[in-house]
Amino acid sequence: MAESEATNITWHQATIDCTAREQLLNQKGCIIWFTGLSGSGKSTLANEVASALHQNQHLTYVLDGDNIRHGLNKNLGFSPEDREENIRRIGEVANLFADAGVITATAFISPYRADREKVRSLLESGRFIEVYLACPVEECEKRDPKGLYKKARAGEIKGFTGIDAPYEAPEEPEIIIDTSVLNLEDSVRKIIGYLESADLI
Amino acid sequence: MAESEATNITWHQATIDCTAREQLLNQKGCIIWFTGLSGSGKSTLANEVASALHQNQHLTYVLDGDNIRHGLNKNLGFSPEDREENIRRIGEVANLFADAGVITATAFISPYRADREKVRSLLESGRFIEVYLACPVEECEKRDPKGLYKKARAGEIKGFTGIDAPYEAPEEPEIIIDTSVLNLEDSVRKIIGYLESADLI
Repeated sequence: MAESEATNITWHQATIDCTAREQLLNQKGCIIWFTGLSGSGKSTLANEVASALHQNQHLTYVLDGDNIRHGLNKNLGFSPEDREENIRRIGEVANLFADAGVITATAFISPYRADREKVRSLLESGRFIEVYLACPVEECEKRDPKGLYKKARAGEIKGFTGIDAPYEAPEEPEIIIDTSVLNLEDSVRKIIGYLESADLI
Repeated sequence: MAESEATNITWHQATIDCTAREQLLNQKGCIIWFTGLSGSGKSTLANEVASALHQNQHLTYVLDGDNIRHGLNKNLGFSPEDREENIRRIGEVANLFADAGVITATAFISPYRADREKVRSLLESGRFIEVYLACPVEECEKRDPKGLYKKARAGEIKGFTGIDAPYEAPEEPEIIIDTSVLNLEDSVRKIIGYLESADLI
């Protein structure tokens, strides 16, 4: 530690960087960005992956509607501009978490390719893992865990992704999982396997 | 891990909570909120505290102008509303970091008592440590590490805290340090001592 006197402060000298934190945590900071329709299993899978990693002593954090919508993004609505700003802020926060060394999972529909690519561009190559949950809309609607498809069909929700608003599938995602075919355990295994092969854990 | 089939997904079952992450990290997530005039030593001290903690195997992260102003808050200016929103977003992000188990230091002037109290109210009691760097404005102006006081005196910057905009000192901060009196090393020691006595590390 610098022994400088108060009148001779050394500015910003002792910064601990991302690499130092990653050594402490024995992992690399990254974003596992889940994208897909409502009901495709984003939050479920994000939390299961985090849980499996945690059991192997890895530090993880999940950003999802539960901790973002009523906090950081509570002053955003559902206009096109606000949806874009929603994803932008989530991307910036996830990037800070990755810089902290945390394996960060995000679970948001994030329907627009351009918005997701902007987040990808924030990170160094290999640190943004896009996981496309390619579950057919019919299956998602059958699950309808939050009753949102029913409301969208009844016209109570306008601009609902997959019903009357578009979803732009990723062109080159790192991982594709059809959760109507692959079960939860195997889906988790596939993602953990990817992290291992990419030397992130 | 749940062995449910894809058609029978268990929603949000496997959530790892803050307590689990804190056990993994052997520390408690919290915010060390530095507040004080420009030049009072917030970033320096935040980084030195983070460095000292890191050397003891603690995971820390510093939020400051360097990683916030050009990222998450790049769409904010310096109007009263934007300044409030600036601190609000930083508080929400710092709260997420604390929830992740990270010892999070923030280094922003944050001149308004009400804005700081809103952040405090996000966390459970004892997890928000307000550190008031009570360095006299004369000393801060003498240091002027970024040349901002000079610009403010020349009228090139309007509404500069301590010159022509108010700074509201905390009424009951957890820690007060006059960095014109206490040197850097002792300042770090005082903060680490507080964290120990509060059982956060």
